[in-house]
Amino acid sequence: MKILFLGDVMGRAGRQAVSDGLPKLRAAWKLDFVVVNGENATSGMGLSAAHARAILEAGADCVTLGDHAFDQKDMLQFCEAEPRIIRPLNFSKSAPGKGARLFEARGGRKVLVCQALGQVFMKRPFDDPFSATEAVFRTHPLGGQASAVIVDFHCEATSEKMAMGHWCDGRASLVVGTHTHVPTADAMILRKGTAYLTDAGMCGDYDSVIGMQRDEPLRRFITGMPKERFSPALGEVTLSGVYIETDDKTGKATRIEMVRQGGRLPPAGPAPIA
Amino acid sequence: MKILFLGDVMGRAGRQAVSDGLPKLRAAWKLDFVVVNGENATSGMGLSAAHARAILEAGADCVTLGDHAFDQKDMLQFCEAEPRIIRPLNFSKSAPGKGARLFEARGGRKVLVCQALGQVFMKRPFDDPFSATEAVFRTHPLGGQASAVIVDFHCEATSEKMAMGHWCDGRASLVVGTHTHVPTADAMILRKGTAYLTDAGMCGDYDSVIGMQRDEPLRRFITGMPKERFSPALGEVTLSGVYIETDDKTGKATRIEMVRQGGRLPPAGPAPIA
Amino acid sequence: MKILFLGDVMGRAGRQAVSDGLPKLRAAWKLDFVVVNGENATSGMGLSAAHARAILEAGADCVTLGDHAFDQKDMLQFCEAEPRIIRPLNFSKSAPGKGARLFEARGGRKVLVCQALGQVFMKRPFDDPFSATEAVFRTHPLGGQASAVIVDFHCEATSEKMAMGHWCDGRASLVVGTHTHVPTADAMILRKGTAYLTDAGMCGDYDSVIGMQRDEPLRRFITGMPKERFSPALGEVTLSGVYIETDDKTGKATRIEMVRQGGRLPPAGPAPIA
Amino acid sequence: MKILFLGDVMGRAGRQAVSDGLPKLRAAWKLDFVVVNGENATSGMGLSAAHARAILEAGADCVTLGDHAFDQKDMLQFCEAEPRIIRPLNFSKSAPGKGARLFEARGGRKVLVCQALGQVFMKRPFDDPFSATEAVFRTHPLGGQASAVIVDFHCEATSEKMAMGHWCDGRASLVVGTHTHVPTADAMILRKGTAYLTDAGMCGDYDSVIGMQRDEPLRRFITGMPKERFSPALGEVTLSGVYIETDDKTGKATRIEMVRQGGRLPPAGPAPIA
Ligand SMILES: [Fe+2]
Ligand SMILES: [Fe+2]
Ligand SMILES: [Fe+2]
Ligand SMILES: [Fe+2]
Ligand SMILES: [Fe+2]
Ligand SMILES: [Fe+2]
Ligand SMILES: [Fe+2]
Ligand SMILES: [Fe+2]
Repeated sequence: MKILFLGDVMGRAGRQAVSDGLPKLRAAWKLDFVVVNGENATSGMGLSAAHARAILEAGADCVTLGDHAFDQKDMLQFCEAEPRIIRPLNFSKSAPGKGARLFEARGGRKVLVCQALGQVFMKRPFDDPFSATEAVFRTHPLGGQASAVIVDFHCEATSEKMAMGHWCDGRASLVVGTHTHVPTADAMILRKGTAYLTDAGMCGDYDSVIGMQRDEPLRRFITGMPKERFSPALGEVTLSGVYIETDDKTGKATRIEMVRQGGRLPPAGPAPIA
Repeated sequence: MKILFLGDVMGRAGRQAVSDGLPKLRAAWKLDFVVVNGENATSGMGLSAAHARAILEAGADCVTLGDHAFDQKDMLQFCEAEPRIIRPLNFSKSAPGKGARLFEARGGRKVLVCQALGQVFMKRPFDDPFSATEAVFRTHPLGGQASAVIVDFHCEATSEKMAMGHWCDGRASLVVGTHTHVPTADAMILRKGTAYLTDAGMCGDYDSVIGMQRDEPLRRFITGMPKERFSPALGEVTLSGVYIETDDKTGKATRIEMVRQGGRLPPAGPAPIA
Repeated sequence: MKILFLGDVMGRAGRQAVSDGLPKLRAAWKLDFVVVNGENATSGMGLSAAHARAILEAGADCVTLGDHAFDQKDMLQFCEAEPRIIRPLNFSKSAPGKGARLFEARGGRKVLVCQALGQVFMKRPFDDPFSATEAVFRTHPLGGQASAVIVDFHCEATSEKMAMGHWCDGRASLVVGTHTHVPTADAMILRKGTAYLTDAGMCGDYDSVIGMQRDEPLRRFITGMPKERFSPALGEVTLSGVYIETDDKTGKATRIEMVRQGGRLPPAGPAPIA
Repeated sequence: MKILFLGDVMGRAGRQAVSDGLPKLRAAWKLDFVVVNGENATSGMGLSAAHARAILEAGADCVTLGDHAFDQKDMLQFCEAEPRIIRPLNFSKSAPGKGARLFEARGGRKVLVCQALGQVFMKRPFDDPFSATEAVFRTHPLGGQASAVIVDFHCEATSEKMAMGHWCDGRASLVVGTHTHVPTADAMILRKGTAYLTDAGMCGDYDSVIGMQRDEPLRRFITGMPKERFSPALGEVTLSGVYIETDDKTGKATRIEMVRQGGRLPPAGPAPIA
């Protein structure tokens, strides 16, 4: 299967770039399944129902969230009504929606998508993501009902992400980090066949501070005194993420490529776009 | 000037790979100046005098440290005796050694190297790195005595690193992050001419948890109970960092390329090595 | 019932003071049940089996632990063999021992003791303590089998501790914080009958930095550079904790008094000791 | 000199209690100098100019702030215009106002008041408070121009506070912690004559979560999902703080008493109020 995962969509510019660019990538790379992390698509803070619909319409089969899952209050209802939304498994015991679900890809093949939140350096505490993903793997073994298993691990620390990669190795097709908004360059296939990338990066303007216009974050770092709200940067967007190919029988990855399309970052992907 | 910066050297395997590989890179890419971050070269924890010497002999013009600067106690003396060691500007008011210094590159040109520690998500608190670097820029303006200015920003958070990039933009030739041990893929030249990469990654074995053998970190994440010490992974090493070219007159960057040589990561660099 | 809870016993001096003083308090105040937090009794780091036995022999009916529960490795076995040891409910899914247990007090009455770890400002992450205690209250309702229910909430943040007090209000006889090693002065009975104190303080020498000799902690705060191990202070100890009286029928608290006996702190307790 | 320090005033109820109670305490205890921490007096978040004036009119000679110093924007100007406001020494290099100042007490004696922020467990990073206070002590030695020196150390961690106590011992008349909103019971005079209390507690309603109405903080701890703003609790207030007596010649403390007046906490103070 050919699968694309795009990292945190950042505000209006990020949404527009997904709407414009994802259909082209889908066609050019003959994608079977697409996951997009949408936790920052609405003003950089959460995801509204309307913006979730726009990302789905652009060609996402599944939209994942993150620690900002419910910053937009209508997501509390929407994630119950729209099965294509995945929130973190360990967001909170009382969170609405689901943290793992089996999706149908092109040709009727099944893809499991789940998301977990890390515990290191996060603004608020979450329960153990290692046992949370373990529970999912037990009910959805790779190469069983699920032809592919995708884990979006939303966290800050590189140590926790690499540990999660090894934890899932052989039990997931892809473990990809999100949340830091900077793509890493360590795409690899782990020992037992799991494709791994520490962070997908964001779909946003990289002439910024993690997707936000530079002035306010800089002011806060330098003076310690906030003055305005953060506001997503509106310059040219790089769509950033990861592309994998998997063996339908085993669910294991046979190829992994970093994806960076447009904007200021060095371009990458499985093949050029005409 | 052609400048190479290599990220945190990780233990014995990392040191060996630097000793073997750096002379080749120096020759192949006709490097004028090389900086290597050595804060994890000795058992993954700090840098001994002997290992610092080995990295310098391999072809580093300058070795930077980090939050682990003085984990090896003989560095307390060595960094006073050996001017090619740079410790963080804001490590502590009573730290020995220097946080910024002017070096001589090939052909007598001068290069300023400085290092600062971030404040976000670090294990212990450090003073403000923004005013620390500001003070350095005031005494060493880019394009003055210094043909190039290199800032190693040793910190965890992508937001703080991107903010530091903009803060230094036009005042440094290169701002490169270290500390997370995972290379990022966001190499770019900022608006006013500063080359920027969020993290250089490590010179270590990436089949690991940030360079440490996987078992003990995994155990701690999963069970919460330590059993053994951490021990650096000993598999094939990727030399990871960044290459820039600068204009000697202005000190600004004219080119930036990610560098990944050997090991498990996708290869990158300004040119192939014979 | 007359119940005494003593906070974190700190090293050799703390153990000695418990051995000397607890029998006197037991007699003078006609105590029915005594809980002692022992997580720092062995060199300030964890609790060995031998030192646990000493605290039990001094008159503790139950010894609780904390985030340092297994710093002494023989506690991994001992807490399975000795039912009077309680480790945190949410230490880790794979921790040995128990986080809640029903004890027998004088006259055959039953007392439930449980301990939970907080999530805010702790060195490593733990799972949600609110749902962990909820599960205990469901199986052990106050005024059912248990004549009294004692919750040791081991955490740093005053906000989390006060929230836990309200969360347990009417479901526990006592919620008492541990871990900060400084006694608070906010002893009160909450709206629905639960006695509450934010922190019990330590059984240790208060001419110290939270029970450790001052020099090394001061050095680390001032210079950022460790030089020696921490070592428990050995001066005169204050036994610090809380005394409550409960109604055996309802399990609710009818009286709460701070306890500080000996050493440098202002003395407090339900009655003078002859 | 007879000096009273009151901890963080919490919202409307706290302000009212200070206005009602402080004149009585001033008269009853014949106070020479009064400091009040006002960082939460305005809706629990910062201090407006109007509310600062009200606290000064109630009898405070000096009002200190904290990490919430500038949550109310008019304090940015007011702290420049009103010399009786002290903000943290190490709030930020660009903060308006002053972090230390010499005040005149009854009878023309001079009192130095300064405030510093801790670095451990704070929401944002601050520069080293140990060297910040050192600089103040150098220019204002105890027993020189200043008959008394008062240090408000605004921080979370008990270890950092106790270390600051020892750091200032013999150089300050009083080191008192603020910020946690829970009074500690460890009032003591340190070896070289400095009165010390880890935390003054708050002037607020203790039937709360650190002064805020319980429902929203409890919801956030239990469900992880915010619903409303925090709002200060409005029940009966305890004025909480510390009283010291000093020797005018040496500046050293001769007496320290915890102060808790009104509300739910056990009463304390140097003498009963008629
Ligand atoms: Fe995000
Ligand atoms: Fe996030
Ligand atoms: Fe490192
Ligand atoms: Fe580091
Ligand atoms: Fe403790
Ligand atoms: Fe503890
Ligand atoms: Fe406060
Ligand atoms: Fe505060």
